[in-house]
Amino acid sequence: MAKQKATVKKIFSPNKGPVILVTNDDGITSPGISALVEAMRELGEVVVVAPDSPQSGMGHAITLNSPLRLDKVEYHGETIGYQCSGTPVDCVKLAVNKILHRKPDLCVSGINHGSNSSINVIYSGTMSAAMEGAIEGIPSIGFSLLNYKMDADMTASKHITKIIAKNILKNGLPVNTLLNVNIPYLSLSEMKGIKICRQALAKWQEEFDERYDPHGREYYWLTGKFINPDKGQDTDEWALKNGYVSVVPVEFDFTAHHAITYLNNMKWDV
Amino acid sequence: MAKQKATVKKIFSPNKGPVILVTNDDGITSPGISALVEAMRELGEVVVVAPDSPQSGMGHAITLNSPLRLDKVEYHGETIGYQCSGTPVDCVKLAVNKILHRKPDLCVSGINHGSNSSINVIYSGTMSAAMEGAIEGIPSIGFSLLNYKMDADMTASKHITKIIAKNILKNGLPVNTLLNVNIPYLSLSEMKGIKICRQALAKWQEEFDERYDPHGREYYWLTGKFINPDKGQDTDEWALKNGYVSVVPVEFDFTAHHAITYLNNMKWDV
Repeated sequence: MAKQKATVKKIFSPNKGPVILVTNDDGITSPGISALVEAMRELGEVVVVAPDSPQSGMGHAITLNSPLRLDKVEYHGETIGYQCSGTPVDCVKLAVNKILHRKPDLCVSGINHGSNSSINVIYSGTMSAAMEGAIEGIPSIGFSLLNYKMDADMTASKHITKIIAKNILKNGLPVNTLLNVNIPYLSLSEMKGIKICRQALAKWQEEFDERYDPHGREYYWLTGKFINPDKGQDTDEWALKNGYVSVVPVEFDFTAHHAITYLNNMKWDV
Repeated sequence: MAKQKATVKKIFSPNKGPVILVTNDDGITSPGISALVEAMRELGEVVVVAPDSPQSGMGHAITLNSPLRLDKVEYHGETIGYQCSGTPVDCVKLAVNKILHRKPDLCVSGINHGSNSSINVIYSGTMSAAMEGAIEGIPSIGFSLLNYKMDADMTASKHITKIIAKNILKNGLPVNTLLNVNIPYLSLSEMKGIKICRQALAKWQEEFDERYDPHGREYYWLTGKFINPDKGQDTDEWALKNGYVSVVPVEFDFTAHHAITYLNNMKWDV
């Protein structure tokens, strides 16, 4: 792989069907993004803009206090895509503004190595990239596989990403909505189907692994247990445990509309 | 200021009313957190756990790939609080697990130097810290002042944070809900009151400031214009423009429940 300066102002001219922006949070060299690119190439013209290093757990972080680098990545003379020194959200912003100079027809993020179901949607760089796409008005989907291993078999996942992306390219998505897709680690024949779900109201029970460095100073590794008290059969957790691909529509209006009346009934004198 | 190892396992024993955890994203030395601490000390026993450096725009990032440091900060023999090398979300997790060893009665984040109204809730470290508090089941509030300057007058803001925090300590919040409070930069007498609102559906129109480093290599600074097509008079943007303190109830169930029927009407064959 060789890096080059991303100098050309109008790199991109679509001629192979819909334009699909592919990004992720595991970095441009991860097997997950490679699988997603292969699947999307069967649907349209793919442009990859992804972080130059792993960005797991970055949530919706953006880079405000340092400059961003953007480099073209080539392999045997073929352009693989563009790598960015920033976060997954930065990648989407740069892709639209500096690479494509237009909105793509679809923005897909992943395939993440590990689940982004339930509360993980909040911490996930994969999902934040997709959310940024949706904020920009682009139909956007985050894909995650329930296997952390870098050598996980992506055959079934590739098929699923293609089916879902094709569906969204054809039918679109409701305004201000994106999809959080999680895929169980099963073969296609073992999968029960695709299920539309709500986010399970689960959480992480943190545990900090406490250690001492060689200089005797304390430090902590964040770790934890996933706790799911939400037993609804309409949740993503239920779907995944029962062999379904979970599809949760996600929105970026975070207002708890149901709480407005409660709060208006309180006294708020200045 | 002096740093010390946070060795004591049971540092904290409440005896001065409710226990209030104070954090932020501008870092432990920012004037905003200092103002919030002063206001909260009138309501209960305050424990500060905040980032050791500015973390603006960190969104809901957590630190997975590097260890975390946690140090007690003292000034003239008085404990100011604890500083953490991680993100605002890490601070809340560490505070509950390693400092307090219990849930505080209230978690407040801020006072942020700059607005976190509308779509900024997504990018904001201040609001993510409060959201993490809410995920842990703690009544939580993020406070932001519509002035970026480090020497902004915090007199009115301090009063507002106290009123709102007192209200929530007394009345609580609906389950799985936190508050996003934005304060216009006005004197108390100029303020029209406190208004319960929904998040305006606005966005940032990105612009990248393109430059060249001394070695001739391109880099970008993320910048942008705030665009608000949402003209509703029930939004936080409207309230702030009209001299009100805006209070938006926020939730961390990101499911677009209204989209589930639409998606179920599509064909999803594997």
